[in-house]
Amino acid sequence: MIDLVLAGGTVVTEEASLRADVAIDGERIVAIGVDLPTDGAEVVDVSGALLMPGFIDGHTHMDMPFGGTMTADDWDTGTAAALAGGTTTIVDFSLQDVEGTLAEAVETWQGKADGKTHIDFGLHVAITNLTDEVKQEIPSLPELGVSTIKIFMAYKGTPLFTADEDLFEALQIAREAGVLVLVHAENGDVIAKLQEEALARGDTAPRFHGLTRPELVEAEATNRAIRLAELADSPLLVVHVSCAAALDEIRRAHARGSAIYAETCPQYFAFSDADLAREGFEGAKYVCSPPLRDPSNRDSLWRGLQAGDLHIWGSDHCSFNYAGQKELGRDDFTAIPNGLPGAEERASALWTHGVKTGRVSEQLFVAVLAANQARIHGLAGRKGSLAPGADADVVVWDPDATIEVTQANRHGNVDYTPYEGMTLTGAPASVYIRGALAYRDGEVLAPAGSGRFLERSFRRPAPAAAVR
Amino acid sequence: MIDLVLAGGTVVTEEASLRADVAIDGERIVAIGVDLPTDGAEVVDVSGALLMPGFIDGHTHMDMPFGGTMTADDWDTGTAAALAGGTTTIVDFSLQDVEGTLAEAVETWQGKADGKTHIDFGLHVAITNLTDEVKQEIPSLPELGVSTIKIFMAYKGTPLFTADEDLFEALQIAREAGVLVLVHAENGDVIAKLQEEALARGDTAPRFHGLTRPELVEAEATNRAIRLAELADSPLLVVHVSCAAALDEIRRAHARGSAIYAETCPQYFAFSDADLAREGFEGAKYVCSPPLRDPSNRDSLWRGLQAGDLHIWGSDHCSFNYAGQKELGRDDFTAIPNGLPGAEERASALWTHGVKTGRVSEQLFVAVLAANQARIHGLAGRKGSLAPGADADVVVWDPDATIEVTQANRHGNVDYTPYEGMTLTGAPASVYIRGALAYRDGEVLAPAGSGRFLERSFRRPAPAAAVR
Amino acid sequence: MIDLVLAGGTVVTEEASLRADVAIDGERIVAIGVDLPTDGAEVVDVSGALLMPGFIDGHTHMDMPFGGTMTADDWDTGTAAALAGGTTTIVDFSLQDVEGTLAEAVETWQGKADGKTHIDFGLHVAITNLTDEVKQEIPSLPELGVSTIKIFMAYKGTPLFTADEDLFEALQIAREAGVLVLVHAENGDVIAKLQEEALARGDTAPRFHGLTRPELVEAEATNRAIRLAELADSPLLVVHVSCAAALDEIRRAHARGSAIYAETCPQYFAFSDADLAREGFEGAKYVCSPPLRDPSNRDSLWRGLQAGDLHIWGSDHCSFNYAGQKELGRDDFTAIPNGLPGAEERASALWTHGVKTGRVSEQLFVAVLAANQARIHGLAGRKGSLAPGADADVVVWDPDATIEVTQANRHGNVDYTPYEGMTLTGAPASVYIRGALAYRDGEVLAPAGSGRFLERSFRRPAPAAAVR
Amino acid sequence: MIDLVLAGGTVVTEEASLRADVAIDGERIVAIGVDLPTDGAEVVDVSGALLMPGFIDGHTHMDMPFGGTMTADDWDTGTAAALAGGTTTIVDFSLQDVEGTLAEAVETWQGKADGKTHIDFGLHVAITNLTDEVKQEIPSLPELGVSTIKIFMAYKGTPLFTADEDLFEALQIAREAGVLVLVHAENGDVIAKLQEEALARGDTAPRFHGLTRPELVEAEATNRAIRLAELADSPLLVVHVSCAAALDEIRRAHARGSAIYAETCPQYFAFSDADLAREGFEGAKYVCSPPLRDPSNRDSLWRGLQAGDLHIWGSDHCSFNYAGQKELGRDDFTAIPNGLPGAEERASALWTHGVKTGRVSEQLFVAVLAANQARIHGLAGRKGSLAPGADADVVVWDPDATIEVTQANRHGNVDYTPYEGMTLTGAPASVYIRGALAYRDGEVLAPAGSGRFLERSFRRPAPAAAVR
Repeated sequence: MIDLVLAGGTVVTEEASLRADVAIDGERIVAIGVDLPTDGAEVVDVSGALLMPGFIDGHTHMDMPFGGTMTADDWDTGTAAALAGGTTTIVDFSLQDVEGTLAEAVETWQGKADGKTHIDFGLHVAITNLTDEVKQEIPSLPELGVSTIKIFMAYKGTPLFTADEDLFEALQIAREAGVLVLVHAENGDVIAKLQEEALARGDTAPRFHGLTRPELVEAEATNRAIRLAELADSPLLVVHVSCAAALDEIRRAHARGSAIYAETCPQYFAFSDADLAREGFEGAKYVCSPPLRDPSNRDSLWRGLQAGDLHIWGSDHCSFNYAGQKELGRDDFTAIPNGLPGAEERASALWTHGVKTGRVSEQLFVAVLAANQARIHGLAGRKGSLAPGADADVVVWDPDATIEVTQANRHGNVDYTPYEGMTLTGAPASVYIRGALAYRDGEVLAPAGSGRFLERSFRRPAPAAAVR
Repeated sequence: MIDLVLAGGTVVTEEASLRADVAIDGERIVAIGVDLPTDGAEVVDVSGALLMPGFIDGHTHMDMPFGGTMTADDWDTGTAAALAGGTTTIVDFSLQDVEGTLAEAVETWQGKADGKTHIDFGLHVAITNLTDEVKQEIPSLPELGVSTIKIFMAYKGTPLFTADEDLFEALQIAREAGVLVLVHAENGDVIAKLQEEALARGDTAPRFHGLTRPELVEAEATNRAIRLAELADSPLLVVHVSCAAALDEIRRAHARGSAIYAETCPQYFAFSDADLAREGFEGAKYVCSPPLRDPSNRDSLWRGLQAGDLHIWGSDHCSFNYAGQKELGRDDFTAIPNGLPGAEERASALWTHGVKTGRVSEQLFVAVLAANQARIHGLAGRKGSLAPGADADVVVWDPDATIEVTQANRHGNVDYTPYEGMTLTGAPASVYIRGALAYRDGEVLAPAGSGRFLERSFRRPAPAAAVR
Repeated sequence: MIDLVLAGGTVVTEEASLRADVAIDGERIVAIGVDLPTDGAEVVDVSGALLMPGFIDGHTHMDMPFGGTMTADDWDTGTAAALAGGTTTIVDFSLQDVEGTLAEAVETWQGKADGKTHIDFGLHVAITNLTDEVKQEIPSLPELGVSTIKIFMAYKGTPLFTADEDLFEALQIAREAGVLVLVHAENGDVIAKLQEEALARGDTAPRFHGLTRPELVEAEATNRAIRLAELADSPLLVVHVSCAAALDEIRRAHARGSAIYAETCPQYFAFSDADLAREGFEGAKYVCSPPLRDPSNRDSLWRGLQAGDLHIWGSDHCSFNYAGQKELGRDDFTAIPNGLPGAEERASALWTHGVKTGRVSEQLFVAVLAANQARIHGLAGRKGSLAPGADADVVVWDPDATIEVTQANRHGNVDYTPYEGMTLTGAPASVYIRGALAYRDGEVLAPAGSGRFLERSFRRPAPAAAVR
Repeated sequence: MIDLVLAGGTVVTEEASLRADVAIDGERIVAIGVDLPTDGAEVVDVSGALLMPGFIDGHTHMDMPFGGTMTADDWDTGTAAALAGGTTTIVDFSLQDVEGTLAEAVETWQGKADGKTHIDFGLHVAITNLTDEVKQEIPSLPELGVSTIKIFMAYKGTPLFTADEDLFEALQIAREAGVLVLVHAENGDVIAKLQEEALARGDTAPRFHGLTRPELVEAEATNRAIRLAELADSPLLVVHVSCAAALDEIRRAHARGSAIYAETCPQYFAFSDADLAREGFEGAKYVCSPPLRDPSNRDSLWRGLQAGDLHIWGSDHCSFNYAGQKELGRDDFTAIPNGLPGAEERASALWTHGVKTGRVSEQLFVAVLAANQARIHGLAGRKGSLAPGADADVVVWDPDATIEVTQANRHGNVDYTPYEGMTLTGAPASVYIRGALAYRDGEVLAPAGSGRFLERSFRRPAPAAAVR
């Protein structure tokens, strides 16, 4: 039985771009074929468009407390923004309460999403306090549908900061439990000291956010996390790789055959340390961690994507308003909430800077936005692929659409956009989630609450195997 | 319209392994789907089997003269052997006659294949004499359906040997002509000298074949070929990479972002320098170039495959009988014709040593045997992929089949097999070529002459892009 | 005026080995020359011998508490042993009392040496508690004649362990103060966890000392220390480098132009992890940190010395008796006091394994035992060189002397020697300290208390300059 | 007996800079000491000056034919220039006549020097035709006092060009004969092709000299030469390393432990590709091979010197007049004679750009100008060191002298200087050769013909040992 045929488009998979139709029965794709019989199914003509698997964003922070404030986007506005950018699944970070259990974190975050999310979602747990009880709890995460935990090596002085001791033990436990560890790799000790020194000198402006988190701070922690993973014989995902020096450490690990995954993010390609130094307090709009870097890093990062050393392209969407939130750090850059909105622009930014420039093939585009995301985040088979049997999450991509980005045309709930005034090329014309039209022509159609929680399970790759 | 449905199997693509049927109309695949409607088509139950794209072998030498003798296999026996191993397409090497044109080489080789080949085929041209006329002829190769030329840096003293001057110029011309250069990378000067010295010492046994072609000879030439390609701003395919030191040079090139492709071969994983040193003259059966290496190289080569630094797995099938051919070098290892049969064992050897041991995923298996072969050798879209619109070349793979290899059960025309006595796991149960059953249960069904010549065209990847 | 001429020998300097006499006036060398006029001075015929600068050992632990016990050697027996091996100067580690000042540590250690030391000495301070007071005290160390401080990244759970925060701050303060930081680079967090796990499994034998401190633990910490030094723009000395993986990190730093010094020790060349696994509790005699390694590391370490990536050869002499001390860990390897005696064997071991085998030139021998030691440890000009104006510390080296090492013929106060039963080649025939005969033919002649405290000052090298 | 005492200066050796006198008896240094007794010897007060060993320049081309013309400097003017720069010994290149023997080349060059040279000298032989006779002749070179031969991988189309075959065989023969091979590492095949293409495009200006010899051409050949040396188990000296990419290959070789020496030259630090692009035909004054590079290479080259990956600093003095010689290539850059004068500026350029800027210590200055030159070029013990027993070749160096360079104040015979208008700091105040005053205050005092031929012998270092 076929309900719906998307006909006349070009199907883009990791393997190839080919003229084919996509047949959908209920929530699933049932066939990919040439001139598929329609048998009374609804036929949507998608001529001229590219059909891609719904994009997965393994790195978002919705409705999350940070430094005494809450992200500007909750699950309603945040997932609407993601959907408008072609994303049909996110994996968001539930934060362990320092006194709480991991299950409670998951439950809390499910509650935040409940009735609000427009798209499907999974949940990571960020460990903030690795007590003996928590150690015993980790192996039960897969039963909750959680296949990933996150450790922060940065943010010394907050509960997020984790010492090597706990990172190493978490890696050991995770290996046994079939759980993948994600790591925010910056040396928190050094940053804390450099921040203290900067403030003591009176260097309080946003650009000192970047100057107190130099590239070597990230490179060091990246190597350390990798080494601890190797010692624990555990896979690892290094998130938001921002600079060549950190990537070099990942490349070394791959040459050794280690199962290290890596994510990079659009902001490191669209913006730079020059934005952090914008006049007045404008730089605060560009404060995220790791910080925006000198553009000389980009060539290396592009090569990292091309060579498969960087596997996924996540947004690290973590939005704060300029007014009232970013402004908390007017006199002290360390008080600026860290994070940028970007869930909506994620795919278009890669199309603009990567595909249009010839740096990224359509296949690589799909790999880092969908297929590799699914593999790493435990969703393969269901999400991330236009294949028979998979959920019918489909992006109908208009490769020539151009968007003049301005805050007013964004779907999220932030009072600014770092992309203000930029032109992006390539955007979803429409998006289907589990067979239903969820977005078309700028309008979010999937109702709040229509997204489902996804139980994920991580499968360790063949020894030392690359993602594919 | 659907003629044939292969139903109930697991479709293996680069992306994933999934339960799905394959529908075929005439010579083409028209759909991949779950429980596809059959509408009176023939339905073949392939439950329990893996369905894979017909394998492509971009590296064979059929009916080729070498050192005064001809390969044991012609196109009849050679392609029968390949087919029995799941290969539905080969790209074979036509050799330019020193006095002849490239078009003549292609014509000669087409004549050799004509009426004999059981499978589809393309042709490379090996340049043996880069005259001004030949330089002008190269750009016309694509019109002949030839997208690849080969240069030998080894075999000094034969017409195959090519000086840097010609290699560099060929790379320049090829870049302009949209032709890909393949290179046999060993330093012919050093080998010639080491051989001369060995013979002068009376070291005539087969094992001196290996000792006079040490790893550094290959590593040096590999780096040189890569540098010349970078200087010519041209892509390059390094064939039969045999050792860690050569792979290191390729890995360096990838870190620089260069468009270097690389092939390795089963013999470097199944055999070693110890086989070259077998008692009596047995080692002659294992003489190929680059030579079999110390097994300590294998870990690195596996990592090269896993990390995408080695893209394809070719057979370098080049068969000579022991009696009368290999024996030509009884008193002088340099007179032993170089080459091993292996077209039939190629895929099974990778399944046995790679997939069964957990080193190679099913996706990587398909990538290096089919999908990457198609991309590199200019066949993407038509061959190498189980996708709607592609030729219906399908391997019905039995992952648990075991073969006790012995000369008597081989399909080629050689009086020995280097795999004698070995057990291989995984083999084709049946094979389809363009929709027709071509092989089943050990029997070659496709008639001699049923294979077609394939016009190929190479498309340069996005700048500095990896294969995918 | 000349008091003493050592005539007829071969003077060995970093530059060359040359036939020349050494003229001494009082405590100083005044001339090196051919057939120097003697003018009534005492003339000692040293024909056949090599004249070298008195060796400097920048890494000893005399009379030091560790894990509830004291080293077997105090300053009397320890410096006698060092002198018998040709060492005329040590730089020993004074340990800050957790509640105490650095000045008190220096004073305490001067007290320990007072009246006992047979050779000249300087003192490092090992920081155990970097309080605000201590931070303010560091810049005053040079006034005390102390140019070096040490930080331990290992030994979690003891006061020695130092977090990155303090290491980084110490590097910053040291840079400003003209003080060099020494680092014991092993990841204490990981070791603590691995030890805990081993003990929980009942793995209590000495060999688990090595297995719970794997090479990557050292490599990781080495890279981290280097990165922190680079971030602090400070030089750094990595002591007791034991394995190839750690050396690789140092080599990378040198390629980046960083001012990183490195020491290795004879035990990593003379013994191996096999010794740790000796039958019964014998392995305890070989417990030191970093632990003895697989011999496959040695080739790389030799190359590190040859290429100037490893600059000095220190003993890390830290002796404990087998009876009553090593035995404390009979049921728990973590209770075995860490350390080996080796001050006496240091130079002979290098001559035996390095010079006699052709791996180390006489020039390199002198460099790593004397000249580079003097540069790095702030003694250049006075010590470490047979040059006019320098202290007349001279080793009259017999290159062919052979020693059958046994506990009974050692000059220290330990109840065993790890070199038991080994034959060493090359040894001092006699030794002069500041012009006075201090050792001859196995007999220590310099009285206890005759050694002097040396005020040292570190001079940062030219930007990114190598030691020489 | 002492004839002469240079008193009151600072003696600079590889080890240290120290206040000491130098005593000379006849042609030799007999003592270095503090307040040496003078006993009626002549005493020269050199207060404020640095005393260094006479500099050695292992890379000059005097009275040499090139492209149909002769170098502007013969042995009279060329060695006068060298002496004025502090050089007391050169090793010059005698060129084998294509039809001639090596002995004849040496004899011819001795004849050119005879009666003309102001300083001591040795001779290399450049092999231009490796016939069987020449192969048999190589082992007799040491008897002629020649310890070095040179092979050119560049200059295709001239007799200088040498194929890998001959380079490899020369390395094998040299290893056996105790001869060191020097290599000019640029890929001649690629250059010839790029030149041909440039000229065909009408690109005839001097800057195309650089553009047709890109960095990779040097890097490739450097790696190839190193690999051939490793295969032949032979040491090797790579001369005139000009760029980071070539240095990287040398650094890799050192990490592997190979005995590879390397030279760089002042022109790669003082000038750049911008000079090649000077207006009009001025760029011709800066044509040398390898060509002047982009200044971004310099940081890496400085680190190479500091880390001991580059061992010597040679001039590659090869002078041609602008008028009548460089002008030969007015319409065709390939006809411009390759080479720059620089023997006179060599040491001052290093002092200016290296020592004054803090990049190079006085010790490293002496190492690369004298001590390492002596070791590599077979003169250790006699030349290159201020040590008792060595020849009394002494540079009295004024560290603060400043020279405004202009053609008129040069001591050579060239009608221009590439250093025109530049200010150099540091210069010889006076120079002694074998105890005799040879130069003072701008005036060459050593008569033409006073220099002597030096018999040299190369001693292979300890296996895999660095120079020191």
